[in-house]
Amino acid sequence: MRDRILRALKGEPVDTRPIWLMRQAGRYLPGYRALRARHSILELARTPELAAEVTLEPVRRFDVDAGVVFADITLPFAGLGIDFSIDPGVGPVIPRPIRHRAQVDALTPFDPEASVPFVAEAIRRFCAASDRPLIGFAGAPFTLAAYLVEGGPSREYAEVKGWMYRDPEGFGRLLDRLTEMTEQYLRMQAAAGASILQLFDTWAGVLGRSSYARQVAPRLTRLFDHLRELGRPTIYFSTGSAHLIDEIAGLGATAVGVDWRAPLGWVRARVGPDLPLQGNLDPAVLLGPRELLEAEAAEVLGEIPDGGSHIFNLGHGVLPATDPERVGQLVDFVHSAGAARR
Amino acid sequence: MRDRILRALKGEPVDTRPIWLMRQAGRYLPGYRALRARHSILELARTPELAAEVTLEPVRRFDVDAGVVFADITLPFAGLGIDFSIDPGVGPVIPRPIRHRAQVDALTPFDPEASVPFVAEAIRRFCAASDRPLIGFAGAPFTLAAYLVEGGPSREYAEVKGWMYRDPEGFGRLLDRLTEMTEQYLRMQAAAGASILQLFDTWAGVLGRSSYARQVAPRLTRLFDHLRELGRPTIYFSTGSAHLIDEIAGLGATAVGVDWRAPLGWVRARVGPDLPLQGNLDPAVLLGPRELLEAEAAEVLGEIPDGGSHIFNLGHGVLPATDPERVGQLVDFVHSAGAARR
Repeated sequence: MRDRILRALKGEPVDTRPIWLMRQAGRYLPGYRALRARHSILELARTPELAAEVTLEPVRRFDVDAGVVFADITLPFAGLGIDFSIDPGVGPVIPRPIRHRAQVDALTPFDPEASVPFVAEAIRRFCAASDRPLIGFAGAPFTLAAYLVEGGPSREYAEVKGWMYRDPEGFGRLLDRLTEMTEQYLRMQAAAGASILQLFDTWAGVLGRSSYARQVAPRLTRLFDHLRELGRPTIYFSTGSAHLIDEIAGLGATAVGVDWRAPLGWVRARVGPDLPLQGNLDPAVLLGPRELLEAEAAEVLGEIPDGGSHIFNLGHGVLPATDPERVGQLVDFVHSAGAARR
Repeated sequence: MRDRILRALKGEPVDTRPIWLMRQAGRYLPGYRALRARHSILELARTPELAAEVTLEPVRRFDVDAGVVFADITLPFAGLGIDFSIDPGVGPVIPRPIRHRAQVDALTPFDPEASVPFVAEAIRRFCAASDRPLIGFAGAPFTLAAYLVEGGPSREYAEVKGWMYRDPEGFGRLLDRLTEMTEQYLRMQAAAGASILQLFDTWAGVLGRSSYARQVAPRLTRLFDHLRELGRPTIYFSTGSAHLIDEIAGLGATAVGVDWRAPLGWVRARVGPDLPLQGNLDPAVLLGPRELLEAEAAEVLGEIPDGGSHIFNLGHGVLPATDPERVGQLVDFVHSAGAARR
């Protein structure tokens, strides 16, 4: 197995910077688009041979140091008895949002082998076909709760924050259920062959620091504590969360994924020299010319000049309008320029 | 005139914490809702007697220390020859987004007296009817550009960032036009009687620090430099921008408005003791019980224990679902508890 990324996550010396890209398997790739012309996102995700094929496409095209399973953070909702869809141009839609304690108590007990076995099977198929480590992932409890309570993406998050303030215990019960679900879901992915587990907390940044410290951080700390038994490195990714960096650094994840907003050097200065960091090129840079791409990627590399414990990535997912050629240029540039900055 | 807020903005001693609330004139108030049943947002904003009435409603109901003119940051777009609407549940919609340099060059020269005279007239009417200072406001250039380029609110801001990276000069020309427009628009508001000028840079936080430093900060510095001639205090407000705080502190605004994310004490430690700060209670707290509201408001007050140069506000606009009674309770609590923490 190509173990560059695993070594970086352990803080061991590497020959160059490892790189993978969030959403590297997806919307900008021709093979994926061809499949999507015939199948919905959920059909793709729930059909292991197709999900594995989508996961493999970027690994065959580019010299990325890991694959990331094609899935969606909402998939396990079905195992809680929650009806949902993924609507093109909108994202996840939950027709009957969860806004009361009684709805939390009525959720079905989660059994990953019964409700999301296809994710495990897609992972097994990828691992049989590739020498690259496979990154499994799940949504973090607050981000999942935000979707469930709002009923979909939101701008103000008034429903979820309103519930959190009005009834911290009832809302906390929802977070607890989602924390347990996430742990089981990630355990299944590790058992199927995932070498790395990433937690996506996309909406954590909408919380003020004291709310995050009260409601979110203790549950994540417990989750990472349990996941440690699996012996797999973990990565915690969130966006718009520079104000939470002290709490995030203390969660117990192996590494922290950083969005494109705060320079990695700024984050490094705050979290200390030992915590591996992942990120953080602005995905919109891939929409520009190659010269800009290389200059901006060099800037990211330069933020961690010694290369210590850095996994190169975008600061968010690859944008659909991205030219696949730019992705290949980025991967090659990082591998070649990163060798000089170890 | 009740000058508590003006004194706080000058760093002078005050008898208690001044307070006003972003979007205090609006969606949660019964008088406003009754008017909206008969008029669109743009009709209200463009009819000075109605806009003045909406501006006065919260000042009559609550003991807030300032009024804030009822307007929308998109209003001056009409003066550039840009067609737009404000769609309920969506926000501003620009049917023909601006995405090329030629479109920037084709914009109409902006004349505030010709295109937005109703805003000046609403300000004059408010000032004639109230002893409270009036806060005028405008959108900041990058935030306005984000709407114009995306065609409305966005989640990924791929179009605006893509243009910025691909063609920094062409995009910079759009920012320059919007900077000039904003200056003229605020000059008109000051001349009409606005005592304070606030700049809303709602989307600045989607930029990484180096993009902000390159494209946005120099233009804002020039803008605040020009506005200084007016002898009116200025406030720069942005959201999700904790990673930009060093740049923001150096823009030259009289005060910095802080969203609910980062504790004010954290911000104070970074910007030094002299820069007045405004904020930053999470608006969702107003959806909870009174006890919670007072506890959370006390926490905000405690973040600036000596009360030096602090204007109490929410960290974002009042949410539509807010009970007006809570707003009154908040204003009274801040005035009473703030007297002990001067």
